[in-house]
Amino acid sequence: MADKPRDQDAFVNPFNVGGGSLMLAWQLKDKTVLIVGGGEVASQRLDSVIGTDARMVVLCPQSGLNARTRRYIELFPERITYHDRTFTGAAELNEVDLVLTAIDDHIQSRDIVELCRQAKIPVNAADIPDLCDFFFGAQIRDGPLQVMISTNGNGPRLSGLMRKKLQAGLSGYEGEAITKIGALRAQLKKRAPGVGGPLGRRRMQWMTQVCDKWDMEDFTQLDDSMIQGLLDEGWEKERVPTIEELGGKPIAKKAPSQETGSHPAPTSSFSNAVPWSLGLITGAALSFAYIKYARLS
Amino acid sequence: MADKPRDQDAFVNPFNVGGGSLMLAWQLKDKTVLIVGGGEVASQRLDSVIGTDARMVVLCPQSGLNARTRRYIELFPERITYHDRTFTGAAELNEVDLVLTAIDDHIQSRDIVELCRQAKIPVNAADIPDLCDFFFGAQIRDGPLQVMISTNGNGPRLSGLMRKKLQAGLSGYEGEAITKIGALRAQLKKRAPGVGGPLGRRRMQWMTQVCDKWDMEDFTQLDDSMIQGLLDEGWEKERVPTIEELGGKPIAKKAPSQETGSHPAPTSSFSNAVPWSLGLITGAALSFAYIKYARLS
Repeated sequence: MADKPRDQDAFVNPFNVGGGSLMLAWQLKDKTVLIVGGGEVASQRLDSVIGTDARMVVLCPQSGLNARTRRYIELFPERITYHDRTFTGAAELNEVDLVLTAIDDHIQSRDIVELCRQAKIPVNAADIPDLCDFFFGAQIRDGPLQVMISTNGNGPRLSGLMRKKLQAGLSGYEGEAITKIGALRAQLKKRAPGVGGPLGRRRMQWMTQVCDKWDMEDFTQLDDSMIQGLLDEGWEKERVPTIEELGGKPIAKKAPSQETGSHPAPTSSFSNAVPWSLGLITGAALSFAYIKYARLS
Repeated sequence: MADKPRDQDAFVNPFNVGGGSLMLAWQLKDKTVLIVGGGEVASQRLDSVIGTDARMVVLCPQSGLNARTRRYIELFPERITYHDRTFTGAAELNEVDLVLTAIDDHIQSRDIVELCRQAKIPVNAADIPDLCDFFFGAQIRDGPLQVMISTNGNGPRLSGLMRKKLQAGLSGYEGEAITKIGALRAQLKKRAPGVGGPLGRRRMQWMTQVCDKWDMEDFTQLDDSMIQGLLDEGWEKERVPTIEELGGKPIAKKAPSQETGSHPAPTSSFSNAVPWSLGLITGAALSFAYIKYARLS
């Protein structure tokens, strides 16, 4: 099966016509997401939105906050603005780019959706699928890698089952590998700069050869000096060295599992496999450093 | 690892804070998507949008249409309105809910984005990531199952690699199994109607037990009479019968592969593994019937 359909292969699989969603990766840098509510559903929304660069506003009386929502508000004061009150009216939507209602009161939820429609702001209303511009799905997140699974209305339980099934095929190294491949490509572009043309094609071909020859897991070993070595011994000599040539060693592939290994593939933003609470502040600092690094590279 | 985080497990994996997209399943029933352009990128957009229930408008001079875009326009006249001209101005955005530009002219693309911002219509501008409200990713579609993979700016090649990796873990039976599980749940609700409460919980528990005990592949054998048998012998007797008890047989699990088997997992809306062109019209009819069925169940 060709990886890329040729232009003339205009054959449509009728099983996949209609009935589905448009799966999108929504961009929220410099945007504001309003979350109305502070209970279990609100904390699930925060799980998703915290993974973006959005600012958040949470509207909920103190008494309605669950522990996780409260924790998010405490941990990210620079990103989350919290107001100890219910939704008051259309003015709440000023400067807001996306709205998520997470309240039990369907009547109020419908009112908020109506205001969003007037203001042309995309909205998800928990438990009222007919009113939603978009749905959430089960997710896998591993650094730069994000996977979303939707069963189009067949319920979160089946989506979760599918997530487990897909996750079983991942080693847990993928996110780190993608980050390192990005760093390699950035260094290659520095060494052989320019956009498009024969050089651009050569760069792309060489990167493809490296990705084909190396196991994804092996990329996690790349540090700055190994990247330079790979470019010296590989790019410059129009070949692909082995990881051993660069002083690394092939990483033994683990039996696919989501629970073993030093790089457990995260099933969600939450994990009790590791006492994250202990290293949280340090971790957050490292994380922001990582994000900066990932952006620069 | 608990499947569901307990309320008090408010631990955040710092590797997954910030830097990502909000992964969404956008709903397009009764909505209109404007695609500006008719070349390779436009046909890729059609691959995605044809899988939803959206109406589409394609703006492109005849000379700019590639074979696949032309084929889509021919095959789906009731869903795609085609205009043999370029984008003329703000009036094109009337009654439009989503805009995708797929033209080489970045200046015109920027102008269209600006008009979309004024009209508050979400827009994706091909090749101009800074102007996009959302990105597309690599996709797996199998009937009701949709999976989207994003590497957050690390390029379509890596997303495609990840898609292959994830797809290798699928048997290709999942879409059909999800459809049948949906039909089973619908029949169970008919037999034991009502929303929430102890009965709702019992229904959910029994469905979970069935899903835990059966292999996903086995569900593909369920027809109407087997569903009734499963409810008679299972739900009514508070147990989970085997597929053999119902007259079926366990399906031998295939070695995970994306190319073998009678249910090849589709890599995209296009496949040259099967001569779809021959059965296309019949297939499309079946597909619409399936979609109707999936909605009713």
